[in-house]
Amino acid sequence: MSPRPMARPGGRSARVQESVHTAVRELTAEVGREALTVPLVAARAGVTPSTVYRRWGDLQELLSDVAVERLRPDSDPEDRGSLRADLTAWAEQFLDEMASPPGRAYIRDALLGDPDGANAGQCSAYAAEQIDVVLARAAGRGEAVPDTETVVDRVVAPVMYRILFRPGGLDAGYARRLVAGVLDAPG
Amino acid sequence: MSPRPMARPGGRSARVQESVHTAVRELTAEVGREALTVPLVAARAGVTPSTVYRRWGDLQELLSDVAVERLRPDSDPEDRGSLRADLTAWAEQFLDEMASPPGRAYIRDALLGDPDGANAGQCSAYAAEQIDVVLARAAGRGEAVPDTETVVDRVVAPVMYRILFRPGGLDAGYARRLVAGVLDAPG
Repeated sequence: MSPRPMARPGGRSARVQESVHTAVRELTAEVGREALTVPLVAARAGVTPSTVYRRWGDLQELLSDVAVERLRPDSDPEDRGSLRADLTAWAEQFLDEMASPPGRAYIRDALLGDPDGANAGQCSAYAAEQIDVVLARAAGRGEAVPDTETVVDRVVAPVMYRILFRPGGLDAGYARRLVAGVLDAPG
Repeated sequence: MSPRPMARPGGRSARVQESVHTAVRELTAEVGREALTVPLVAARAGVTPSTVYRRWGDLQELLSDVAVERLRPDSDPEDRGSLRADLTAWAEQFLDEMASPPGRAYIRDALLGDPDGANAGQCSAYAAEQIDVVLARAAGRGEAVPDTETVVDRVVAPVMYRILFRPGGLDAGYARRLVAGVLDAPG
């Protein structure tokens, strides 16, 4: 796995984060997003509301942190033997996860409670790290590879732009066409 | 000019919208975004707070509507005699406006108070309409042209994605490279 810049130090601070994040996830499932409040989350997590406010500022910033954790990839992209196969499979899965209703909600939460842009930057770093793995593996096989920023512009950006601004047509065929475009006409 | 799907009907409704939007713009300049409240905006606009709540739901939705109005292009893209010149000039100006501090704030506002995605869709429609004008003019000159959705994916999407998720490197040279990419290697 790649390094995880979001990982927080261990000890009490890490335990508080874990219990508060868990409380948000459980309560979202039980009572829904609209009914969440800081006192409700704090009570479930066994901390005081002021602990939550001190650490996260407000509910929107807490939801943004939880969303970024949920958007963190679980594993490296699968090795299917070629750059084209690896990148196509990764792009299909990326689109599928991000365009799903929970994916859209997490992207929105990540952006909204993020005054300094750190969480949005982390979402982008997750995608770039996954692409780095695919490209490094292909280069190791002796394949010619585009650079990561080009793949971000040609595959990640259109998927995320359409999710946020221009929904519709977001299917696996679209992901495959984007990957074919960057591999066949790198520009 | 292209049709303006956001234009509202005339009469009292249009006057209320105009005075409330003007109040938001003036108060934002005078007291700053953080100090805005619905009662403050309503008082300046000469309407009751309930008029604002009834029409816009809450402050975030009102700010989203104001942002979309501010993101509406003022005029058609300039005719510089060729597709490459027109699209390059348009992309440079688009990046410059969107990546500016007010542009970023408007994009954020437009996305945040937009539960059904209509305002985000309108932002995207504005860009697509400008591209349509450039491409139709080039086709009229007999030039070969990519389609609008390809230009959205290759030029608009990377600019907007980087503004939201991956800031840095957003200069005129980046806009020019994106346009050169889509014209020289349409993919």
